[in-house]
Amino acid sequence: MTELTAVAWDGDAVVYLDQRLLPDEVRYVRARSVEEIEGAIASLAVRGAPCIGVFGAFGVALLRRSIDDDAAFVRAAARVRAARPTAVNLAWAVDRVLAAGDMLDEARAIASEQVAIDAAIGENGFELIPKNARVITHCNTGPLATAGGGGTALAVILAAARGRKKPRVYVDETRPLLQGARLNYLELQNAGVDAVLQTDSAAASAMAREGIDLVIVGADRIAANGDTANKIGTYGLAILAAHHGIPFYVAAPRSTFDFAIAGGDEIPIEERSADEVTEFRGRRVAPEGATVYNPAFDVTPAHLIAAFVTECGILRPPYREAIADLELRPLVGVR
Amino acid sequence: MTELTAVAWDGDAVVYLDQRLLPDEVRYVRARSVEEIEGAIASLAVRGAPCIGVFGAFGVALLRRSIDDDAAFVRAAARVRAARPTAVNLAWAVDRVLAAGDMLDEARAIASEQVAIDAAIGENGFELIPKNARVITHCNTGPLATAGGGGTALAVILAAARGRKKPRVYVDETRPLLQGARLNYLELQNAGVDAVLQTDSAAASAMAREGIDLVIVGADRIAANGDTANKIGTYGLAILAAHHGIPFYVAAPRSTFDFAIAGGDEIPIEERSADEVTEFRGRRVAPEGATVYNPAFDVTPAHLIAAFVTECGILRPPYREAIADLELRPLVGVR
Repeated sequence: MTELTAVAWDGDAVVYLDQRLLPDEVRYVRARSVEEIEGAIASLAVRGAPCIGVFGAFGVALLRRSIDDDAAFVRAAARVRAARPTAVNLAWAVDRVLAAGDMLDEARAIASEQVAIDAAIGENGFELIPKNARVITHCNTGPLATAGGGGTALAVILAAARGRKKPRVYVDETRPLLQGARLNYLELQNAGVDAVLQTDSAAASAMAREGIDLVIVGADRIAANGDTANKIGTYGLAILAAHHGIPFYVAAPRSTFDFAIAGGDEIPIEERSADEVTEFRGRRVAPEGATVYNPAFDVTPAHLIAAFVTECGILRPPYREAIADLELRPLVGVR
Repeated sequence: MTELTAVAWDGDAVVYLDQRLLPDEVRYVRARSVEEIEGAIASLAVRGAPCIGVFGAFGVALLRRSIDDDAAFVRAAARVRAARPTAVNLAWAVDRVLAAGDMLDEARAIASEQVAIDAAIGENGFELIPKNARVITHCNTGPLATAGGGGTALAVILAAARGRKKPRVYVDETRPLLQGARLNYLELQNAGVDAVLQTDSAAASAMAREGIDLVIVGADRIAANGDTANKIGTYGLAILAAHHGIPFYVAAPRSTFDFAIAGGDEIPIEERSADEVTEFRGRRVAPEGATVYNPAFDVTPAHLIAAFVTECGILRPPYREAIADLELRPLVGVR
């Protein structure tokens, strides 16, 4: 159980780990059709912004080989690209593959770059974590979320742990789908990091009583002004951190930045099914007929973010300038 | 399913509704022994600060009839009184019964007063709810939580609904035990109130996007300066409300005020079992061996609270004076 591979290419299919079944079951699934690729992303069997980018890249390269008709292929690629609307990495990776001469080569490049990017994010964020830091994090941001090396926010925490800073990590369970409890806790436990699981609504109490030093999270899309869409609950966590004078950091690769949009109000927010809240692994936990408000993401305004950790370095305010500068940097990990 | 009775006296036992099984199953249980009474409170089969007060009062009156030995009875009453540490209503009700001539009469008085208190809280809070208000609430604060008439925070909402103010209520599911999803949503649905279920971490998003007008919650213990212990998540919700300029109200009977303690740091906070977070209705949702931070309550400092709604009226800052004045008021509903 210690080595989990989120996405792999096996020669004639994209193989993915069905993350919905963790930590109970490790099941790898081969996807070949557009329905299987789109479905794996839409159902969150494959999730995490950089991870669905890598998966979508392989998926489109695979479909190019199996769909001869050009118009049919364009429609299939568009379906994969739109399987989830908020994380920009998916569209970014699909567009990059579509523009390449050898699509499979390009997908492989995206995957191997992600490993280097994760490592660089970990190294660059290392300085932000004090010795013996107590850290809150939200959702899953480890290797499962990037299909890369160490993840985003978790890469920074894992780098600090390897550097003997002995972080203690308070892991938000992350309702409704519990990516924190099921995935992030598992990855920290496997890495031997001191981790404490908490309900999302215990974060304020932890800040008041447990001496939290910082919050670090990942991202699904970052606008040109630094406004950041991430898993539902992130925005509230940023407000709580500001109230307690605790720095709030976002770790994300450059592919998560959407240089084309000016601010967070332009980011589409996916609303997901009521069942995610009213059922719990098949058992109802709310009355029949309940109306549900279930946005998968929220937007944290840039002014609540102390810094971004990217593979190109740490970005500090003013973000409009720092992000414009990021757009001009060379890619990390490119052959 | 529309008429649920939290606690009743049947002549030779205290009958309670096992609230852990709702909304799936309506099961009434008779408690006679000290183990059964203590266990029903400690397991949260009976929960809600005023409700465990009423239940504890009947329980102690029952034990006085069945335990002849005075020393044994005193020990049994102490066990009931200490079954949960945070809500002060339990100790308050047990002490009141112990001091009475006829204990069963006193328990009956506490129960019938609670009905009048709930009604008065609803009436007094009515003015705080604008027409078409969008309201966030947390945990369960309806009749199930008080064994009374309409509850505390929910009594105010139900009064507004009866007064044709058409509130729309965003119901925090309230992890880990989902009293919001299972109980509060059910009570609102049964009353025909427009209710929307959300994960606890969606509250900030709702404030930013859904036009929330106010937050109203119950309480487990209120110190003499207004610091308020309530279900975990309340403190964070109060910070979010302050950040968005939304008034945050607490509805509670006088029996929830602990006039003997100066501030929130004197309120004992119950830490509950890790299983509440790592298991979901018997299914594990976190890796084996997970360490868990699971305080059942947090403390909201008085400065984040816009007003208290009590059966004696609305209390506004400065709270030290308003709460000292509350202590001197005559009891509501007393024969």
